[in-house]
Amino acid sequence: MHVAGALDFQPTRESIPPPNVSYQQSVLGLAPNVHPLNPFPFILRAAAVYPDKLAIAHPDVKHPAFYTYAVWAQRIQNMAYGLIQAGIRPGDRVAVITPNWYDLHLLHLARMKTFLVDAHFGVLAARAIVTPVNTRLTPPEVSYILKHSGAKLIFIDRDFMHLIENTNVPIIVCHDTGRAGDPYESFLSAGRVFSAEKGWAGLDIEPDENAGAVLCYTSGTTGRPKGVLTTLRGSYLAAIGNVVEGQISRESTYLWILPMFHAAGWTYPWANVFACATQITMRSVDYPLIWKHFLTSGVTHYCGAPTVQIGIVNDPAARPLPRPISAVIAGAAPTAHLISQLEQKGIKSVHVYGLTETYGPFTRCYDQPHWGTLTLEQRAKLMARQGQSFATAQDVRVVFPPQDENDEELRDVPKDGRTVGEVLMRGNIVMKEYFRDPEATRKAFQGGHFHSGDLAVWHPDGVIQVVDRSKDLIISGGENASSLAIELELSSHPHVLEVSVVARSHPKWGERPMAFVLLRPEHAPKWKDNHDSFASELIRHARTLLPGFACPEWVQIVDELPKTSTGKILKTNLRKVVAKL
Amino acid sequence: MHVAGALDFQPTRESIPPPNVSYQQSVLGLAPNVHPLNPFPFILRAAAVYPDKLAIAHPDVKHPAFYTYAVWAQRIQNMAYGLIQAGIRPGDRVAVITPNWYDLHLLHLARMKTFLVDAHFGVLAARAIVTPVNTRLTPPEVSYILKHSGAKLIFIDRDFMHLIENTNVPIIVCHDTGRAGDPYESFLSAGRVFSAEKGWAGLDIEPDENAGAVLCYTSGTTGRPKGVLTTLRGSYLAAIGNVVEGQISRESTYLWILPMFHAAGWTYPWANVFACATQITMRSVDYPLIWKHFLTSGVTHYCGAPTVQIGIVNDPAARPLPRPISAVIAGAAPTAHLISQLEQKGIKSVHVYGLTETYGPFTRCYDQPHWGTLTLEQRAKLMARQGQSFATAQDVRVVFPPQDENDEELRDVPKDGRTVGEVLMRGNIVMKEYFRDPEATRKAFQGGHFHSGDLAVWHPDGVIQVVDRSKDLIISGGENASSLAIELELSSHPHVLEVSVVARSHPKWGERPMAFVLLRPEHAPKWKDNHDSFASELIRHARTLLPGFACPEWVQIVDELPKTSTGKILKTNLRKVVAKL
Repeated sequence: MHVAGALDFQPTRESIPPPNVSYQQSVLGLAPNVHPLNPFPFILRAAAVYPDKLAIAHPDVKHPAFYTYAVWAQRIQNMAYGLIQAGIRPGDRVAVITPNWYDLHLLHLARMKTFLVDAHFGVLAARAIVTPVNTRLTPPEVSYILKHSGAKLIFIDRDFMHLIENTNVPIIVCHDTGRAGDPYESFLSAGRVFSAEKGWAGLDIEPDENAGAVLCYTSGTTGRPKGVLTTLRGSYLAAIGNVVEGQISRESTYLWILPMFHAAGWTYPWANVFACATQITMRSVDYPLIWKHFLTSGVTHYCGAPTVQIGIVNDPAARPLPRPISAVIAGAAPTAHLISQLEQKGIKSVHVYGLTETYGPFTRCYDQPHWGTLTLEQRAKLMARQGQSFATAQDVRVVFPPQDENDEELRDVPKDGRTVGEVLMRGNIVMKEYFRDPEATRKAFQGGHFHSGDLAVWHPDGVIQVVDRSKDLIISGGENASSLAIELELSSHPHVLEVSVVARSHPKWGERPMAFVLLRPEHAPKWKDNHDSFASELIRHARTLLPGFACPEWVQIVDELPKTSTGKILKTNLRKVVAKL
Repeated sequence: MHVAGALDFQPTRESIPPPNVSYQQSVLGLAPNVHPLNPFPFILRAAAVYPDKLAIAHPDVKHPAFYTYAVWAQRIQNMAYGLIQAGIRPGDRVAVITPNWYDLHLLHLARMKTFLVDAHFGVLAARAIVTPVNTRLTPPEVSYILKHSGAKLIFIDRDFMHLIENTNVPIIVCHDTGRAGDPYESFLSAGRVFSAEKGWAGLDIEPDENAGAVLCYTSGTTGRPKGVLTTLRGSYLAAIGNVVEGQISRESTYLWILPMFHAAGWTYPWANVFACATQITMRSVDYPLIWKHFLTSGVTHYCGAPTVQIGIVNDPAARPLPRPISAVIAGAAPTAHLISQLEQKGIKSVHVYGLTETYGPFTRCYDQPHWGTLTLEQRAKLMARQGQSFATAQDVRVVFPPQDENDEELRDVPKDGRTVGEVLMRGNIVMKEYFRDPEATRKAFQGGHFHSGDLAVWHPDGVIQVVDRSKDLIISGGENASSLAIELELSSHPHVLEVSVVARSHPKWGERPMAFVLLRPEHAPKWKDNHDSFASELIRHARTLLPGFACPEWVQIVDELPKTSTGKILKTNLRKVVAKL
């Protein structure tokens, strides 16, 4: 049947037909009105609606790659078929080993592979589980993760082959060329051939929305890393939460500064595609390159820990931006000084808080209309709080510690801003489990909530504020001193760039705080041969702001602070230093 | 345990503590990581994060009401307890009868009750189902709906008591005063007393996310109205889809022009609260009042059918807006003339398409970057298309009709922009069922998809375009003529304000189109005593744009067009006129 009338108008430009992105045949068995939540089909919708839009750019390499949504969707489909051809079955784990971060003093180098973001869609399209592996681990640690996860296939960057000890797991190497001859590209091409052009219709979507999506191993500052398994449903909802909270839209361009292997890049690989935004990844990133992208690539959004934000605003290339950029900050609270520096450049901070176990952000510090009348210092102190439940999160609470391991009753601390308890979360963006570790899972879910291990107070306005990781609290003369709070105050000294505080044993007080300080480059020469004077100066500064028991007893100037691959300061390493003193 | 440091800073203003909006105790039995999707807890989060923000304003009445999120959340909680006290049990239906629209020629009067938007949260909080009833129905029709739905309680506007024939269902009357003595307010107060201050923690959340949320009876131009039952999960996802597509945020102010009883106000009662936006409802609305709100109340968003948009832009109070407003248009395709008029006033159109059975919008016509180079006429023709899948919708397809009622195989029409088929939808925002009508449900879901009853073509760029309701297609000389397409072309005549085309039998051609035309007021006098000349003029105009078989054979000038309460033209009534000719 044909119809006549005004309906045959077509776009006048040369029209590129969108890809066949319908997976309709494959879900014929599903109900018409309940479909499993899954973030991978975001790519199908984006490719159907904006086939010619730039989806992902990988510009800073010898052979830059710029994929439209239509082309990228095809590559993802090829990956899914390639995995199935390689024998990957539903629920199998596929490891991805690709570098993200180097830590060279103040210069953080990131290397981002498009194949990691590909995998967030392609592996899920094959109904398997993505297992990103941190490349800063040692070969034995990588071996442990590969063995513990039971990975059936490994995608790996060619420069990181040394991380893999003898294994009989199939390995696909990526040379990051995007060209024929690159084994990764050959894998995709073979997948395309294997598909016999059946397209998306030839792939089954995972019918169980609570099936595994990503298996991320936590950095594990103590003990063996734990595998955090997330679900498809949680990933879908967390990604949409990030779109809403970050106001990401089809007009947005997201720069990958945040490591993508950490908590599934906080679900941003999916969030950006849900919003039909453009993503820019970098093979070799430094701060000048970030500023180049800020100033010339139309960047609107990025995420990063405070330490990264400090690097960005203090880079010589930093300058006021022509258009505002939104920075989502997590990992630690931003200081007033940092917020002010970011604002001066035109970067608006959004402070969020969460863990790998909560798909990244679970709370956000929502700025309030009446904060406009406060000073920057006052506002920054409010903004440093971890906040309230995220759009698609559910409950966050602060409770007294359980009486014993069978105590399932949860008692909220009073909302007085002073009483410390543990942060508990519950809802759809809490992990499924610690993979193959029922005992750790049981302990983490005691009382029907996830136990974060973070200590916090609950303010009268319902906002939580993390005071410390439980192990970082300093018991000084019987008083609890928050290392985070001390760091916040010390960093208000104009010569301090970054500071970390840990407990050091003290004959009289049990423990006292010790501060490790990185000076601002312009002030460092003044104190070079005069560390003691600086220590006195900083302790004097602290006394004006903190009670005596919370003032550092010792101050040490350092050239760098030890950090995890995600930019978090490794207090474990500082404690080792302290133990030797 | 208390902690010292910089953490005791509180907002300096007099702080109003947020309400106790945690429902934590009530869901202790739930898993830590899978919570039932439900739009009602949006109010808890909004009230926790922005307790003092204006949530809902009802300003144009003798006793204006302005509720902050904290106060509104308390009223909703009171409603939930009141319902439980009244014996409402999980799954029971609660009817709400409140006026929305009068149709006085070009002047549409809307009356909006806060108690309808209250009910979208309060009834769900009591685990019951909201059943909004159209007040333009006759008492027998209302009786049918009350009986068919099995409503256990009725909230009703005092002016609409005449709609209820003898019933023994308890009735709560609302005088819309918001003050003591109003029976609705007494009901809320009694609920508060009954709650014994147990708060949200005393209410159980519905554990089944696929339980019923809203039962909307379709206007039913033929036969008995059908009850469209939606789910909590679908409502949650549809509301979030509308937030994302409409870019509603905490900075938004939504004006209730769209009838709230229609498809749960397309889920906007929840969408606005999810986004923590402000909603403005009106008791008695006319176009000058809409413009007053546009110009003085900070309105950023509204929804409405083209006929309403026509009324808005043609009102004498219309003028260019200081800030852009976003208008979501559904119910019929906007014409080029309308889009241009809206743009001249600073109103940006978003064209969406859906049915009550799809929670309202299921597709959106996504404007493309390259449309910027097109003329307004070209762009409007592209924008008039119904588009592609919405953010949280899944598949939309156009298929050939089934061979018979047992034919479950679906054959897509070619994407040629010419072949007509039926629009089918599938996914989480497809209704649960036709309430108490398994036969109609089975037919609607034939082949595992929802059958919309709308005829469409599928364009090469993946966009669907509705050509007609199946019953509105005109078979003229064996050719299919789309009444919608003919209307689009006829409305390009400068003297035409609105036009509707239906089939009229013809001795030679079987059927031929007949047009009913409403003239623009400024041109109407010219043709007052000269209808035939205008008919000839319009047919001449049509011949330049349409094939012969699609040109109207008859043209009749009318003073008004018959419409449903939601502003859709009642072609059934026009066909009755035609049948008598």
